Amino acid sequence: MGKLLVVGTVAFDAIETPFGQTDKILGGAATFIGLAASNYNVQPGIVSVVGGDFPQEYLDLLKSKSVDIEGLEVVKEGKTFFWSGKYDHDLNTRDTLATELNVLADFNPVVPMGFQNADVVMLGNLHPEIQSSVLRQLKSRPKLIVLDTMNYWMEHTWDALIDVIGKVDVITINDEEARQLSGEYSLVKAARKISAMGPAFVLIKKGENGALLFHEKRIFFAPALPLEEVFDPTGAGDTFAGGFTGYLAETKNISFENLKNAVIHGSNLASFSVERFGTERIQDVTPDEIETRLQEFKDLTQFDFEIQ
Amino acid sequence: MGKLLVVGTVAFDAIETPFGQTDKILGGAATFIGLAASNYNVQPGIVSVVGGDFPQEYLDLLKSKSVDIEGLEVVKEGKTFFWSGKYDHDLNTRDTLATELNVLADFNPVVPMGFQNADVVMLGNLHPEIQSSVLRQLKSRPKLIVLDTMNYWMEHTWDALIDVIGKVDVITINDEEARQLSGEYSLVKAARKISAMGPAFVLIKKGENGALLFHEKRIFFAPALPLEEVFDPTGAGDTFAGGFTGYLAETKNISFENLKNAVIHGSNLASFSVERFGTERIQDVTPDEIETRLQEFKDLTQFDFEIQ
Repeated sequence: MGKLLVVGTVAFDAIETPFGQTDKILGGAATFIGLAASNYNVQPGIVSVVGGDFPQEYLDLLKSKSVDIEGLEVVKEGKTFFWSGKYDHDLNTRDTLATELNVLADFNPVVPMGFQNADVVMLGNLHPEIQSSVLRQLKSRPKLIVLDTMNYWMEHTWDALIDVIGKVDVITINDEEARQLSGEYSLVKAARKISAMGPAFVLIKKGENGALLFHEKRIFFAPALPLEEVFDPTGAGDTFAGGFTGYLAETKNISFENLKNAVIHGSNLASFSVERFGTERIQDVTPDEIETRLQEFKDLTQFDFEIQ
Repeated sequence: MGKLLVVGTVAFDAIETPFGQTDKILGGAATFIGLAASNYNVQPGIVSVVGGDFPQEYLDLLKSKSVDIEGLEVVKEGKTFFWSGKYDHDLNTRDTLATELNVLADFNPVVPMGFQNADVVMLGNLHPEIQSSVLRQLKSRPKLIVLDTMNYWMEHTWDALIDVIGKVDVITINDEEARQLSGEYSLVKAARKISAMGPAFVLIKKGENGALLFHEKRIFFAPALPLEEVFDPTGAGDTFAGGFTGYLAETKNISFENLKNAVIHGSNLASFSVERFGTERIQDVTPDEIETRLQEFKDLTQFDFEIQ
């Protein structure tokens, strides 16, 4: 079974959308990635940190979904990372109301022995030095290393970010961040410049406007599934990453053709994630539902005419 | 040969983009639609109006592209409709600097006898009463009537707009306008409401984020081709409409499957249009270039895995 090592936050989120609000609920990039990936025939393992306030039921939930949590450090005297945000009426913009790093401030990731030979490594959005530290602990070069990051690290830790970008195969980044990282407005040019920094594959996420996969001179586009309602976008990008890497760790094929499939699988899972608050929907999605919606993606994008 | 009747503006445009600016050049919805459609095996005919200042070379250009201009009225003592706009650095927003209706203010469209039995009718963005007047002059019901409109008519001529929307098969509209027309934020819900007003097909244009075709419970999505450079977006939507209706007038097949193909053809031509100012690129695009880029659209969107 393919092993997927996931590094990222495990957190409490408090979310306000036009449709309601939550108290502190389960959140964090590694949580969404791990739960999403658990829909594939893989062994996901999380490397992260939480405080003594992190409830046993959340640990049990992850274990029940076959997410390995040996690498999830519990700092008894500390508090779990907390994020709170409020979404605008159109759900496309959000204000961060609170970010309390807590135990994340001193996070020193330790990759369990069992995952030092992972097939696929997903470096969730974190300080680039933490991401690099994880790579140094690996006993063998994974088939594929995927890195997520954000504008904050471009503004505050440029050198460390460029260093880790140079070590990965795939970078996932949103369109504005791709422009910021490359200094190019055209996403075609931006992807080319970013690829020259290291990653053979550049995956640009455009939220409800889909995702673009660039590799050498090839481009693949996957739309987001048009939905009746988007309830809560929190974690959609991480769910996408979990579906993307989960599919690749299961199939162990890193050709461009198979990465295209992985992009569709990621978009597919993300379309479930936004239907309810936090991880609610991605926790209980069934294999039948996943297959049905994959067919909707085919219907949405596939056409058939002869080109002369 | 399929006949395509096109109603819309023929204009002078003065355009300013970050890459340069033009004096008064050939523009207008019917111009772009007619030139785009002339790439198909169809007879496009324009119904529009210009002033005595409209140069013979532009009339000759349209004729040389097999665009019938019998329905293009020349008001000798009048001036041609003039639009001027300036694009923002990202080309996604523009300011209108001038709109001089001139001869368009009293436009009374007359459909030439030869086009009163058109196979496909494309009602470009104009006053909805002008659009209705064209439909009343038709001797037989076309296979397909396509209507383009904009927010201005929603705000100023609601009843007339609703009336003409009730008479067409396809409405093309951008995402913000679809929301305004329907009062729904979700494009899935918006399309359903708009379809209930009359059109069996709702085609929502999202500019660089592609286009969505809705029909009953089915949805098809076509991306815009990611380009190295977008030089001038003026007329891209009308070029899209010209490729869409040109393909349909040639194939005379109005199934959902064939409308999907038409959306791809429209997106394909639009991707050329933006490469140079105004109609420059769409005037000289070759059949080989069109075919090559259709293949790029296939490569961009087609994937192939079995769904269990």
